[in-house]
Amino acid sequence: MQLAMINDKIVAIDELEPVYLDRGTFFGDGVYEVARSYDGKIFTLEEHLHRFANSLSAIGIASVDIDQIRNRVQKAFDAAGISNAKIYFHITRGSGPRNHIFDASLKPNFFLTVMEMPDDMEEKTEGIAVSTYPDLRWKRCDIKSLNLLANVLARTDADQKDCDEAILVDEGGLITEGAGSAFFAIFGTTLQTAPLTANILPSITRKYAIEAAKNIGLELHEKSITQEQVSSADELFIAVTTKDIVPVVKFDNKVIGDGRPGNYTKLIMQEFRSFTK
Amino acid sequence: MQLAMINDKIVAIDELEPVYLDRGTFFGDGVYEVARSYDGKIFTLEEHLHRFANSLSAIGIASVDIDQIRNRVQKAFDAAGISNAKIYFHITRGSGPRNHIFDASLKPNFFLTVMEMPDDMEEKTEGIAVSTYPDLRWKRCDIKSLNLLANVLARTDADQKDCDEAILVDEGGLITEGAGSAFFAIFGTTLQTAPLTANILPSITRKYAIEAAKNIGLELHEKSITQEQVSSADELFIAVTTKDIVPVVKFDNKVIGDGRPGNYTKLIMQEFRSFTK
Repeated sequence: MQLAMINDKIVAIDELEPVYLDRGTFFGDGVYEVARSYDGKIFTLEEHLHRFANSLSAIGIASVDIDQIRNRVQKAFDAAGISNAKIYFHITRGSGPRNHIFDASLKPNFFLTVMEMPDDMEEKTEGIAVSTYPDLRWKRCDIKSLNLLANVLARTDADQKDCDEAILVDEGGLITEGAGSAFFAIFGTTLQTAPLTANILPSITRKYAIEAAKNIGLELHEKSITQEQVSSADELFIAVTTKDIVPVVKFDNKVIGDGRPGNYTKLIMQEFRSFTK
Repeated sequence: MQLAMINDKIVAIDELEPVYLDRGTFFGDGVYEVARSYDGKIFTLEEHLHRFANSLSAIGIASVDIDQIRNRVQKAFDAAGISNAKIYFHITRGSGPRNHIFDASLKPNFFLTVMEMPDDMEEKTEGIAVSTYPDLRWKRCDIKSLNLLANVLARTDADQKDCDEAILVDEGGLITEGAGSAFFAIFGTTLQTAPLTANILPSITRKYAIEAAKNIGLELHEKSITQEQVSSADELFIAVTTKDIVPVVKFDNKVIGDGRPGNYTKLIMQEFRSFTK
């Protein structure tokens, strides 16, 4: 008899709940999004849905109706009644016996959570410490996939060093991005960040951080930042959906500037928040 | 209220079954093994358990008792009563609200299936066709992790080309391995395959294929094979737990040798099978 075992319990394959045969678990065969709301309104939901559609298409999960996803997100958000919420959702290719090759008739699985997302004011007013970690991720980080073990290992390493984010460095010594954020440096009146390639997530917060920076008069330089360059940066910050802009005041134990959030960073934070009203 | 949504159904977070919060799905935060039995006996189970322990340790999942895993595998295999079985098992770091950083107290989730594994005699007697695909995987393929989306995409591409396996090629034009197999070429009396590095799975079948080749008088050359080199190969084959040795007779539509399984490959297959008795 073909069978399965869940911890110590033996179950006939046919009696197994489909969630145990989710390709999301077997292969990370799915894509996700994280959006957040400010004061009762989901920020840039359309852009998240657009990127989600791109991720689905990039891995060949067809037959997902984005209007249906939008409705589900909105319905869950309304039901939760949390004004500052973090909304996570993923779609996997479906459930079935483990096989790399999939049946085109598989029905995708949708999963979503809405959680409270209080602003961590201390991170914003005091800044955070970050540490570097080798970028071990796959070569299509422009796809927001469920293959995130490299990110987990990087974040765990940072956490063990009492840092709040891991900054990923490729084999050539170039900074790609944070394990869960975009990374920026300010030199004089220039804002520098890596250009969007197959190794970089097209971050929505990145886009608005750049817009905010331009609005306050900074010039954009889209070029990968080297580890060495960081030492001479006037200011550093990360951009991430759940926290928007967070100043970085320590990089691999080296204090940046005077160890306080930089003035331009503070202006960018302020400008960014005006977008969310 | 913090809530979750499964397809169209809203569920309170607290009422969610832990399997929906499995880090295996959120991050691919787990490792797996595939073993098989020949005529009622699991082949090289100890080596699979040893590699499993290495994978667990590499991603920092502690507190797994390998003796308990061995007992579970044997218990499920005995209960299934399938003499030629494919045994798949994975462990994920555990279930909890999605957060890269994990609580050390998480309880790992174990999942296993035992399925019928009939030999595909046609593949063995006629050989298979393979096609190449860029190696998009992460940089620690020596860890048998659940981050397998790159492998799924590669295999899907091969399947669409009516091929049975995807052979992965890195940015330098070197063949690393198959999407789910080790890759070998024979030139004269030399067997060539990529050396074991962080990009290559320490395949147990690879090890025994090499032993079989040595037993029949071939010399081993552990060096990555280039795509160009393949054209001049006398024989090609792949090695994979579920099928042991499978001759490759077509590579990116180019016929290898006379388009039939090579003589050395057939001897290696025969010798390999003697190990399984």
